[in-house]
Amino acid sequence: MQASNDILPATGPAIILVEPQLGENIGMVARAMANFGLSELRLVTPRDGWPSEKARAAASRADHVIDAARVYDDLASAVADLNFVFATTARARDNFKPVRGPVEAGRALRARQRSGQRTGILFGRERFGLYNDEVGLADEIVTFPVDPAFSSLNIAQAALLMSYEWMKSGLEDETKTNFSSPDMMPATKEQLHGLFAYLEGALEARGYFRPAPKKPKMVDNLRAVLTRAGLAEPELKVLRGIISSLDRFSPAMPRGDGSPGDDPRRLPAAAARAAKGTDKDQA
Amino acid sequence: MQASNDILPATGPAIILVEPQLGENIGMVARAMANFGLSELRLVTPRDGWPSEKARAAASRADHVIDAARVYDDLASAVADLNFVFATTARARDNFKPVRGPVEAGRALRARQRSGQRTGILFGRERFGLYNDEVGLADEIVTFPVDPAFSSLNIAQAALLMSYEWMKSGLEDETKTNFSSPDMMPATKEQLHGLFAYLEGALEARGYFRPAPKKPKMVDNLRAVLTRAGLAEPELKVLRGIISSLDRFSPAMPRGDGSPGDDPRRLPAAAARAAKGTDKDQA
Repeated sequence: MQASNDILPATGPAIILVEPQLGENIGMVARAMANFGLSELRLVTPRDGWPSEKARAAASRADHVIDAARVYDDLASAVADLNFVFATTARARDNFKPVRGPVEAGRALRARQRSGQRTGILFGRERFGLYNDEVGLADEIVTFPVDPAFSSLNIAQAALLMSYEWMKSGLEDETKTNFSSPDMMPATKEQLHGLFAYLEGALEARGYFRPAPKKPKMVDNLRAVLTRAGLAEPELKVLRGIISSLDRFSPAMPRGDGSPGDDPRRLPAAAARAAKGTDKDQA
Repeated sequence: MQASNDILPATGPAIILVEPQLGENIGMVARAMANFGLSELRLVTPRDGWPSEKARAAASRADHVIDAARVYDDLASAVADLNFVFATTARARDNFKPVRGPVEAGRALRARQRSGQRTGILFGRERFGLYNDEVGLADEIVTFPVDPAFSSLNIAQAALLMSYEWMKSGLEDETKTNFSSPDMMPATKEQLHGLFAYLEGALEARGYFRPAPKKPKMVDNLRAVLTRAGLAEPELKVLRGIISSLDRFSPAMPRGDGSPGDDPRRLPAAAARAAKGTDKDQA
């Protein structure tokens, strides 16, 4: 089958599998592509024919990739409409091709895409990869920084890594994530100092800072622990709730038993004094 | 089984699979770890028990990872000896954990490793990932920049990406590859100009540059094509060989037939003159 102009506008490089042997691997490649926003899968004479139910099952609902896959009789036809092609390989070839790592390759593909070029990435057979003359049809080589002692990557894994680097190359910032950390901006110092005052008051009321000459150092240490964590406001609230609970309730008289402490407006006298900072000489 | 101090010195983060369901997936995780230099696999109550022949088969000779895998009764035991733990998840959690992308996470793990910390990465069950209380046992969250419309990553794929980012974080330069491009330093201008002279002489001898007023533009264009490719010296040699063959032989009198051209020292008279640049007014 010849490539033709009715192929959908590419949204990224075509993934081209040369004589893939197992339908399962084709399916896993399709899934990896879908994970990272690729959709154009080309197959050069898949060993077990096409379509493949095993491929569809392994694609795990990436049906849009499987349905749009095209089969070609030879590699030259499969790349005929492309402007730039990478060949993936785990071993050095005796040719003049530049060799790139996957990060560089992802960025190069993105730059070409942005300039309107159509691109593709070749992956060889499970058992022995690409022949030299197949690599020769590509513009450049991409290889992965694998442990040389264990360098054999499954084609689905190789396709996953390139799909991933393609996606990453489109991110404004590689630290960007699909969902965010909660607002972990450290609380203002005023909020933090409010917690210090409350906690130190509650401890003071219990005679924690003893002997008195050690109090300044003890306060220093306590403040250092709570400062180092860079706590955000919601975290301060959690801590305040914990301290308040320890301060106002006891195992024998827990929250909600109708004790005076059940009313948050009524603090036990000592803690109330402590929180106001009027209790400085109690220790 | 408790973690104990007889575990081998870590050479990278431990990969911790929480209740993995399929031996095949455990094996593929082991293979991905081996590809990128990781070796410490921990399993929390694998559904189908351990050891697993399916895991060994899928590991594709990463036997050292399979053989060293340890099984734990619960997640707390599996992380007990670690100083820092990432949880992988595809969805936002309602907690205070910082959320990182995989590149950042790989660098953070490397920095902690260098400071002597032992680290780990948690991966959840195939069907539904990690429970919130399991994520709660980790320090931070790592998530992948997947297409939100197709975000489900197989655990072997997720482990592959983290293993890959771990390896990358140890490279001095992310463009470094296991094998190199050939020496593609562009040839010197003297070498390039030698090719121009030879080619232009051979063309001149054939009356290529006609009409004469167009010659300067034709020469310009020819030199531009050959300059733009940034050809290296070995490539110039290939081109010189091609031009020489076209120049000196014909289909009717190929190289090696005993013709005068078979002796590289004997150039046909016109080409010899052209190469010496003594033929300027022939066109």
